[in-house]
Amino acid sequence: VNELEAIARITRRSASPLLGDDCAILRPRPGEDLLVTTDLLLEGVHFEPGKLSARDCGWRALARGLSDIAAMGGAARWCFVSLALPEWADARWLDGFYDGLLALARAHRVQLAGGDLSRTATFACDIVVLGAVPRGKALRRDGGRSGDLICVSGSLGRAAARGYRDRPEPRLALGKLLRSRLKATACLDLSDGLALDLHRLATASGLAAELDASLPIFPGASLDQALHGGEDYELLFTVAPSCKLPATLAGLPLTAIGFLRPGAPGSLLLCGQPLAPHGWDPFQATKRGRKHTGKPL
Amino acid sequence: VNELEAIARITRRSASPLLGDDCAILRPRPGEDLLVTTDLLLEGVHFEPGKLSARDCGWRALARGLSDIAAMGGAARWCFVSLALPEWADARWLDGFYDGLLALARAHRVQLAGGDLSRTATFACDIVVLGAVPRGKALRRDGGRSGDLICVSGSLGRAAARGYRDRPEPRLALGKLLRSRLKATACLDLSDGLALDLHRLATASGLAAELDASLPIFPGASLDQALHGGEDYELLFTVAPSCKLPATLAGLPLTAIGFLRPGAPGSLLLCGQPLAPHGWDPFQATKRGRKHTGKPL
Repeated sequence: VNELEAIARITRRSASPLLGDDCAILRPRPGEDLLVTTDLLLEGVHFEPGKLSARDCGWRALARGLSDIAAMGGAARWCFVSLALPEWADARWLDGFYDGLLALARAHRVQLAGGDLSRTATFACDIVVLGAVPRGKALRRDGGRSGDLICVSGSLGRAAARGYRDRPEPRLALGKLLRSRLKATACLDLSDGLALDLHRLATASGLAAELDASLPIFPGASLDQALHGGEDYELLFTVAPSCKLPATLAGLPLTAIGFLRPGAPGSLLLCGQPLAPHGWDPFQATKRGRKHTGKPL
Repeated sequence: VNELEAIARITRRSASPLLGDDCAILRPRPGEDLLVTTDLLLEGVHFEPGKLSARDCGWRALARGLSDIAAMGGAARWCFVSLALPEWADARWLDGFYDGLLALARAHRVQLAGGDLSRTATFACDIVVLGAVPRGKALRRDGGRSGDLICVSGSLGRAAARGYRDRPEPRLALGKLLRSRLKATACLDLSDGLALDLHRLATASGLAAELDASLPIFPGASLDQALHGGEDYELLFTVAPSCKLPATLAGLPLTAIGFLRPGAPGSLLLCGQPLAPHGWDPFQATKRGRKHTGKPL
């Protein structure tokens, strides 16, 4: 497949003509803040080619970016896909990749607006997603206050227990409702594991976090997988203690699992015991699989 | 270098604290269209690590994106850098890469607003640049009209003649003036060689292009390098035949090199002879160097 053929194949799969000018031209609506996120998906780090279908690879590449928009309480609008393709990624593989990616894009009304293509030795994909939130209303990780309830959607450790084989579902509808209905004070998506991501939220908010025994562990997952397994892509968020947490929102169970309190910023307690903020670190990933870091980030 | 150290090193080099939330939050001004471009810079395709310093590598990565914004007549505002780093890219190399990138960013008042970092086997960088133009005023490649003069800035073949060793200077000031003062009808940047890029402009505009003998060839460059060598990053643009082309603009010489006329869209003539639209194609690049494609794109 050469560059022109690749572009033609992608354009056929996309609803809109893709390429042409040096930049995509976007017209965000007034009164909105623009959200931008970039996410790498790399052969040997985030996936092994033989173990993930082309469609699942495309789905996963976009899901990572959409999940970041969800965590800010935003609506996703546009995506850009930059692909460095090795020899094994032939025309059929490329078709599958974009079919998977565009299936997820369509489900969330996200428009493929551009990207870059090249040959290389090792597959690399960089996904850029642009989204929007009402001005000044983005959910951030630094907004947690002392006494706020720490909550999660869905269950924890599912991806690790299943060997990271699922198609993750970005929680965009939930993120919007956390912002508009529950007035969440802070939020991020569980991409790198509860312990590490909660450590990040608590550090940014300048508080300690205390977890109780109410973790919604995915059936079959171990406590270790629930605490330190990445790629669950559920939302971790905090709400005011006065918030009446619904049992479900956007079709997902919500569980209060602890609270923020004064203390060493980012320090974690689980049932009164210190909990190390271990999780997924791409700098520690090996060819043989995902590795949890021993170093506090 | 681990992820946290890498982020700390980048933050120290950047004027603003970089990382934290899942997305960067941008607030474009009303009345503007947003421009977005993504550009890959890959080891073995766009550069060889031993032959390009870390600083030049960082500079070049951003220059590619800024040049795309220049070609649309826009102002660059924000950049995002996603880096997949192999073992040879140590902390010192990373420092140099960002020093080079940020030197160029500062020169054009572009803010580093985020990115992604990972380890990998082969170096890959994806640069995203966001810019802006007054609403509806972006220069596009499909606006050329029959009779329009074809013009270029600077000289052609310089990068090829010098072995692609220069730090390319994105023509942002010129692009803005082409839009606002000369009312250019179409524009793109010469990233892949005059013949190929002019072929793209003419194809998009539905016209043929005729070049005369007035090409501003860089001293020491061959005609082949001027026509088919990439990475000059000068601007190729068209203006109405009534336009009084200044000798220089934004400090750069401007040269009229031909005109658009009715004919097979994208077909090229040089001094009356057919000219093949050969140029730089990343799908044809080899480890041993840049290769010109024999296939018409």
